[in-house]
Amino acid sequence: RKSLGEHILADFLGCSSTVLRDVEQIRTFMHEAAKRANASIVSEEFHQFRPWGVSGAIIVKESHLTIHTWPEYEYAAVDLFTCGDSLDIWSAMNYLKEKLECASMETADVARGVVRLGGVDSSMRNLPGEEEEEL
Amino acid sequence: RKSLGEHILADFLGCSSTVLRDVEQIRTFMHEAAKRANASIVSEEFHQFRPWGVSGAIIVKESHLTIHTWPEYEYAAVDLFTCGDSLDIWSAMNYLKEKLECASMETADVARGVVRLGGVDSSMRNLPGEEEEEL
Repeated sequence: RKSLGEHILADFLGCSSTVLRDVEQIRTFMHEAAKRANASIVSEEFHQFRPWGVSGAIIVKESHLTIHTWPEYEYAAVDLFTCGDSLDIWSAMNYLKEKLECASMETADVARGVVRLGGVDSSMRNLPGEEEEEL
Repeated sequence: RKSLGEHILADFLGCSSTVLRDVEQIRTFMHEAAKRANASIVSEEFHQFRPWGVSGAIIVKESHLTIHTWPEYEYAAVDLFTCGDSLDIWSAMNYLKEKLECASMETADVARGVVRLGGVDSSMRNLPGEEEEEL
């Protein structure tokens, strides 16, 4: 048996409320964090809320990286969902901790999709550039 | 003390591999699930992987709804992250369970951002249409 996905839930506490309010800084830092994890970025969406707060999602080939910020509580919730073990999760998380100027980071690591090993390698999901085939 | 966010991690097992491979069906069902949760959709991104598998993220005002599918394992991982308690989480999840033709669904409910109650109401984060103000 193995898990198809690894899901890191990271809570960033005591962050800079100035940074957490700025959608362009958050977008830049999240983009760089994805690159530092060696993730392959497919698409991204960021949104500035009123009066404050930022939400963003980056879809990467290896799955997703999201953030939601509450500047008024100096808090950000970051998720990194990966399939396979090719990503450098902690390079991304430690980079964000520095850039969001966080006092502390708490993380949980959740196994998603625990399945019996079969004949199909789930890592095939992420091979780009092949023609789709019928099952 | 209260938690700023509620994060539902849902594992859908024994799903239809045909549905899980079809990005347009998945997009339609996720969009409808967000509406059934009474979420306000801000933007969405879906991606078809080769040879199979779909990833998608919908950013909603109340935070996000994501999916990753592994058709070869009849498995999908769905996340619904909400701030506030206005969303009808189970209407969305039960709808998806039906549409993905799942045999079973396992969920975990994670409190994110447990903070002391202060003078600022975090629900303000989601009020649309106001001018941004400097802290």
